[in-house]
Amino acid sequence: MNLSPLQEARYVYQPKLPGMLRNGISEISVKIGSETSSVADQDKIKELFPNTYGKCEITFEKGKNTSEHKKQVVGVILSGGQAPGGHNVICGLYDALKATDPDNVLLGFKGGPSGLIDDDFIEFDDEFINMYRNTGGFDIIGSGRTKLETVQQFEQVTRVAKKHDLNAIVIIGGDDSNTNAAVLAEYMAAQGTGIQVIGCPKTIDGDLKNEDIEASFGFDTATKTYAEVIGNIERDANSAKKYWHFVKVMGRSASHVALECALQTQPNVCLIGEEVADMKWSLAEIADHVADSVAKRAAKGDNFGVVIVPEGIVEFVPEFSVLIAEINELLAGESGEEFNKLVDWASKEHFLEDGLSQNSMKLFALLPEFVQKQLFLERDPHGNVQVSLIESEKLLSAMVADNLRKRKKRGAYNGKFSPLHHFFGYEGRCAFPSNFDADYCYSLGYNAFMLIQYGYTGYLSKVSNLAAPAEEWIAGGMPITKMMNIERRNGEDKPVIRKALVELDGAPFKYFAEHRKKWATDTCYTYPGAIQYYGPSSVCDVTTKTLALEQG
Amino acid sequence: MNLSPLQEARYVYQPKLPGMLRNGISEISVKIGSETSSVADQDKIKELFPNTYGKCEITFEKGKNTSEHKKQVVGVILSGGQAPGGHNVICGLYDALKATDPDNVLLGFKGGPSGLIDDDFIEFDDEFINMYRNTGGFDIIGSGRTKLETVQQFEQVTRVAKKHDLNAIVIIGGDDSNTNAAVLAEYMAAQGTGIQVIGCPKTIDGDLKNEDIEASFGFDTATKTYAEVIGNIERDANSAKKYWHFVKVMGRSASHVALECALQTQPNVCLIGEEVADMKWSLAEIADHVADSVAKRAAKGDNFGVVIVPEGIVEFVPEFSVLIAEINELLAGESGEEFNKLVDWASKEHFLEDGLSQNSMKLFALLPEFVQKQLFLERDPHGNVQVSLIESEKLLSAMVADNLRKRKKRGAYNGKFSPLHHFFGYEGRCAFPSNFDADYCYSLGYNAFMLIQYGYTGYLSKVSNLAAPAEEWIAGGMPITKMMNIERRNGEDKPVIRKALVELDGAPFKYFAEHRKKWATDTCYTYPGAIQYYGPSSVCDVTTKTLALEQG
Repeated sequence: MNLSPLQEARYVYQPKLPGMLRNGISEISVKIGSETSSVADQDKIKELFPNTYGKCEITFEKGKNTSEHKKQVVGVILSGGQAPGGHNVICGLYDALKATDPDNVLLGFKGGPSGLIDDDFIEFDDEFINMYRNTGGFDIIGSGRTKLETVQQFEQVTRVAKKHDLNAIVIIGGDDSNTNAAVLAEYMAAQGTGIQVIGCPKTIDGDLKNEDIEASFGFDTATKTYAEVIGNIERDANSAKKYWHFVKVMGRSASHVALECALQTQPNVCLIGEEVADMKWSLAEIADHVADSVAKRAAKGDNFGVVIVPEGIVEFVPEFSVLIAEINELLAGESGEEFNKLVDWASKEHFLEDGLSQNSMKLFALLPEFVQKQLFLERDPHGNVQVSLIESEKLLSAMVADNLRKRKKRGAYNGKFSPLHHFFGYEGRCAFPSNFDADYCYSLGYNAFMLIQYGYTGYLSKVSNLAAPAEEWIAGGMPITKMMNIERRNGEDKPVIRKALVELDGAPFKYFAEHRKKWATDTCYTYPGAIQYYGPSSVCDVTTKTLALEQG
Repeated sequence: MNLSPLQEARYVYQPKLPGMLRNGISEISVKIGSETSSVADQDKIKELFPNTYGKCEITFEKGKNTSEHKKQVVGVILSGGQAPGGHNVICGLYDALKATDPDNVLLGFKGGPSGLIDDDFIEFDDEFINMYRNTGGFDIIGSGRTKLETVQQFEQVTRVAKKHDLNAIVIIGGDDSNTNAAVLAEYMAAQGTGIQVIGCPKTIDGDLKNEDIEASFGFDTATKTYAEVIGNIERDANSAKKYWHFVKVMGRSASHVALECALQTQPNVCLIGEEVADMKWSLAEIADHVADSVAKRAAKGDNFGVVIVPEGIVEFVPEFSVLIAEINELLAGESGEEFNKLVDWASKEHFLEDGLSQNSMKLFALLPEFVQKQLFLERDPHGNVQVSLIESEKLLSAMVADNLRKRKKRGAYNGKFSPLHHFFGYEGRCAFPSNFDADYCYSLGYNAFMLIQYGYTGYLSKVSNLAAPAEEWIAGGMPITKMMNIERRNGEDKPVIRKALVELDGAPFKYFAEHRKKWATDTCYTYPGAIQYYGPSSVCDVTTKTLALEQG
């Protein structure tokens, strides 16, 4: 193994725990809070979770540890996409488990939830764990996207768990995975297996967030990494003064990442999907909004700029969703096969013309040809268009160029427009966790074990007051059912954790909305630079702007 | 202005000077070395530079400053593409100039060489300079690509210089800009203007390097920034285990950046343009080389990997250069207009078939359609194909996919190949300079002023022994003519600084060549993480692997 200097240095970093967890295992006691009820659809959720609903929130505090002593065998899985800090959750879990009793055992099931089904695991020891402390990635045991949701799967998980005498399972994942953790916890309780299930909140998209989850881990590091390179691009734009950079960032279902990057870098334009949906903007209106900034800056002689675009932007555009739905409808079944057999693009276009509504065909005709073709490039197993394959940053810049051509014709614009494109996703998901994420994740894992040790199940490991120094963080647990409501998914009513979208009346968006007019015209770029793990605390211990604004 | 915490912290960083420059201006004396002659074509270079050829190398040392005291008015320009540290060259120059005499004046000419022609300038003062210390970008005065090379331009520069009583001009730029600095110095000397010209070596491509220039500034920071995100991608690849990432990095005419990134991150494959040219590889052979790694890893169950591709790779492929030359020939003049008038792709293809040689048409037919079309997307003012528009990373992955399909057919490969693409260029050119670049650039600027103060012209600011701590660096100057030879450029013999390509018998490439077989099959990724400006010296003061290997 060839380690980088930073990796060696990070191995010896000691993550900061919340003050109340710093006094050693024997000095952690439980304070029971009030009973909880779900954020909506209380009756239905209660009915679905008879054994785990309505439990009390708990917090830990300094005091005699009154938990029952028994040997703990815990299994842990990583679920879904990578997020910086996943390794530290496991390290914190391991350290608390071993500090409680060196005979306790932590098993890591490999490749995500499927590892738990296939009984593919490793047993952690010091030597192994030490190679992953404060590092990025999910390579410690791998991850996967299998969903644990059927009774058949639960039965298999139970068999595997019993084989290893597991008394608890920790699921580190996003909103879906934690929803499934709640369902599994209920199953385990209903069956009287005695197996506890604890969730840990991860998503770098930032959409697993609510009054109990102030931040999902990884969001801090990923947005800092994206903001680093966006800031570098801004500085380049402001030096070369000749390009408009269109930067797409991660975030399919919510625009938290784009918003946080914008707050950190103050680009000329940042699109927020939730606002697009709320205002029912058309693609042409979005392009016009961007072109306004281009034209205003050109009038000042500044033919350069930076635009941040969230990955899922087109999915927030109502007319575009209609178009996609119509195409999916049109290409379902036999008629899809018929379409596939058409060889040349002209006959395909003709086919669409016959099948789409007038409005959708009008929108389709507006799209640049490369986007029209991307729509049919690959379709998912159900024959559906894969919207994620659309290069929305290129679509946008092409429509902006078109808009500017029209402005030029009518004498309303006389600049140069040279767009460049970037997409940042994989660049940030496996970065070394920032001090914040290293501390937060380690605390989540440490705390998860304390929840297990005190016998809780169906709880999410909760660490809060995150805008304050770690010393003042509050550690505890919240029943997952508290965060759930009923939503329609694939034609079925399902109990799920509510996805957190960017709130248009929330402090982060409001700050952005107050300043963006100035940013659109002037050059107000801020250059965050690379994540620092050392140096002045003002540099290496800052949280996200989103969190700072939310917590005032 | 909204400053990031890092920017505020970096403002107060005090760059490290070479030990011999640390004793104050009054304690810097000159040690004259031996006379120099150019690396080749001595007679011709001597003839072209009668006033500046053959001068002695000089180094500074601790001792009484014997320079003549007079008021200095110095002009400085930034030339060409951005590179981290440009601001610090100016800061070092300013500090030495003001430390020598507070009445000395430093003028910054804006927007590159054209600022010197258009007399567009600012006068630096403390307040202004302090806003740019240790920051990235060239936004302090902007840059530009105008070349100072005609006598007419030199006359205009002389007029502007005389208007401001300039006694020296500092040109911060790459090989072409420093070549032009030498020509301008010779002109100024021949005309008896008394105006000195000093060059400073910049290119993040790393191709301005020779026995006198151990590193051009910006290379360290840019490669560290690219290596950071490549390392993150590697960790993601190794966590998700399902994608092959094709990462294109800057570097048109040389592959130093790709090689340095490979040394830092140990990807499965890294292509080196100079080797491709030397081995006379075809595109198909390159694809086969990559496909070998894919197939070997697939046989072990690893359907993921990382490939680094230098931006200019296709230009190193002999058969591709022939194809491009033939296309340029074919589309010159009227026949180009004829081609442009053809509406559909089929008739364009037919046109090419008639005009290209059999070999070139065969290669053309092998190219994926999107590359075929990119070749004609935009042509430069001379009607030439713009090779830089070719998405070589996508071209390569498409050819690898094709190669793998054939292997699969004959049963030699049974894996999955899902490629993803990245391009890193603008992401690194304006990063906050690493401590190395901050120190090196500040020293280059400080040193440049000492060369002016001692009356030298046609010299390059030289700081060497760079693999050692800054204390041990050696500061001095080298006549630019020493680095020159005669090369054929645009059909003319011209005196130019020799471009430094990756040397296949140099230590950096040899290290790479010795290890790449293992890297191609195994997963040997190294994760450098973000540039650190603070922390253990082993983390924040490391130089490039290239420099470390070159200096043993």
